[in-house]
Amino acid sequence: MSDTFKGDGIFPKGPLNEAYAAYFTGTSYLEMLSTEGVYIGNVTFEPGCRNFWHIHHKGGQILLVTGGRGWYQEAGKPARELRPGDVVNIAPETKHWHGAAKDSWFAHVAVEVPAEGKSNEWLEPVSDEEYDALG
Amino acid sequence: MSDTFKGDGIFPKGPLNEAYAAYFTGTSYLEMLSTEGVYIGNVTFEPGCRNFWHIHHKGGQILLVTGGRGWYQEAGKPARELRPGDVVNIAPETKHWHGAAKDSWFAHVAVEVPAEGKSNEWLEPVSDEEYDALG
Repeated sequence: MSDTFKGDGIFPKGPLNEAYAAYFTGTSYLEMLSTEGVYIGNVTFEPGCRNFWHIHHKGGQILLVTGGRGWYQEAGKPARELRPGDVVNIAPETKHWHGAAKDSWFAHVAVEVPAEGKSNEWLEPVSDEEYDALG
Repeated sequence: MSDTFKGDGIFPKGPLNEAYAAYFTGTSYLEMLSTEGVYIGNVTFEPGCRNFWHIHHKGGQILLVTGGRGWYQEAGKPARELRPGDVVNIAPETKHWHGAAKDSWFAHVAVEVPAEGKSNEWLEPVSDEEYDALG
């Protein structure tokens, strides 16, 4: 493990993220921090866990990294390493994935950008080949 | 000081919050984390610093506490003590203030709930009598 973060950060880790388990490789946890006005969730990824490639239609999502080490990647671009304090502003209609590094827990707050008719489109998993090539 | 937090938390403290200094008692710092999609700022308060009573019209604000110890109070209600991990979902049209405890730095991420025609109304300062009665 690359640091001492074990998923217990500032915000509650919450229960197993069962609602989205079908779109994740590995185990994640989800604690909703706000379900009024703006949806905000705290997402915690075990080492090696990442979500599938996906697209936020109409409204994007903003990630505020709070613990550990992870990755964010947009299709056709190199992956960006994420550390606590990093912010990712994901534009709508952008194919991407995010998740933990293979040797580190990772946590981010995810802020949904509200939009009329907003939806998420879940695509294929990030392959082991793509993921294992990252550090 | 009640703990070791000195304003340097997960998110950058940023420069002096000059844009809103006229509506704060004491010194605060503001680092904008997002100015697209949803406005998100990291606000850091020195010990004793708090903002004036104010109202968010149309769209509210969500506070995610990241460091130190502080207070949130709505008019006519007792103040609520805030610690890291606490979340405050401030409804529109609610007169309130927030800030540090007198013996502690304090930091929260503030997420603006988007709304058509949104505005802030700044009112009177929190008096020393009201504030000093808190711990």
